[in-house]
Amino acid sequence: MVGRAIATKLVRLGHDVVMGSRAATSEAAAEWVASTDGRGAQGTFAEAAAHGEIVFNCTAGAGSLEALGQAGAENLAGKTLIDVSNPLDFSQGMPPSLFVASTDSLGEQIQRTFPDARVVKALNMVNNEVMVDPARLQGDHDLFVAGNHEGAKAEARGLLESFGWPPGSIRDLGDLTAARGMEAYLLLWLRLLGTFGTGYLNIKIVT
Amino acid sequence: MVGRAIATKLVRLGHDVVMGSRAATSEAAAEWVASTDGRGAQGTFAEAAAHGEIVFNCTAGAGSLEALGQAGAENLAGKTLIDVSNPLDFSQGMPPSLFVASTDSLGEQIQRTFPDARVVKALNMVNNEVMVDPARLQGDHDLFVAGNHEGAKAEARGLLESFGWPPGSIRDLGDLTAARGMEAYLLLWLRLLGTFGTGYLNIKIVT
Repeated sequence: MVGRAIATKLVRLGHDVVMGSRAATSEAAAEWVASTDGRGAQGTFAEAAAHGEIVFNCTAGAGSLEALGQAGAENLAGKTLIDVSNPLDFSQGMPPSLFVASTDSLGEQIQRTFPDARVVKALNMVNNEVMVDPARLQGDHDLFVAGNHEGAKAEARGLLESFGWPPGSIRDLGDLTAARGMEAYLLLWLRLLGTFGTGYLNIKIVT
Repeated sequence: MVGRAIATKLVRLGHDVVMGSRAATSEAAAEWVASTDGRGAQGTFAEAAAHGEIVFNCTAGAGSLEALGQAGAENLAGKTLIDVSNPLDFSQGMPPSLFVASTDSLGEQIQRTFPDARVVKALNMVNNEVMVDPARLQGDHDLFVAGNHEGAKAEARGLLESFGWPPGSIRDLGDLTAARGMEAYLLLWLRLLGTFGTGYLNIKIVT
């Protein structure tokens, strides 16, 4: 769902997108490709990563390291890797807990596992429709980014602005250790989802 | 700091407040008592808890269970216990991590340890001045409460409204398992503190 929303937005913005899957062909990816008027393509994780100048990790958190391993460190090296995943653990049922928290984060695990990639944590705190259409919510709200590579964050910021996020709403929280807070927020987000009865919500920082 | 801010607000609102400390007399509590024109008093944790119809836990998270143990289960039984604490672990230096997260929370630990108390998690997501003066921030922002006892939450809500929180800004996140998200948010809050350069901040939910 997340990958499809982002891939569709990227195609609409004129980007050349390959959606990666475990297998070279997948039904879900094929369905997406068919919706792009031939402007999107599908392939293995490795083919998608090799193709992209920028890579989005939109896999389920529990499978992210494996999927990125299939993508291949060599295909991620030197590239901006926008990590949208959350370390949700559904193994004990609903609601999920986090399989990493507080002293580490999935974003940092990905950066350590693929040290030549330039990981930017972003977009993990909103649902897939808000990610690519922030104006869907009423009023101003904020998006957070974190990462160890300033150039990669600048590249991510440009893409996020093209998604519709106002420049002033994109808040740089510093290095990738901020992913701990951004991912832990999901525990609050899940309760907000239940309380407000909608996933179309986000937070605005008030000072 | 938190206890003093809340105690001062309570005294100003006409409540009869005893500030508890480890010892029957403490310099910090004495200084606070002196600022109340005789309307505040100090005592041991047990004396404070025995005195109060409502009890605020404003102790450091790492010491909360011990302090409440000194307060005495018998002095907490049947009472609304507003838990403002956060499970911050400073043992590895700054920034702190959380000593409980994701599958449990300090609020729940307190409720399990003192099953006859009626724990309401609240106010832990803002600094002590915002707690008692929400209008200090520009614009609307939200406060969250959670707990297993509806009557206790209603009592807490009344107090929070008297602190200046507009009724519509007080969001009930349900039972005390929501404390997991409310406490984990501190990891994000600490990064926001650094990014915005001020602890005078809070979030507003935008839908």
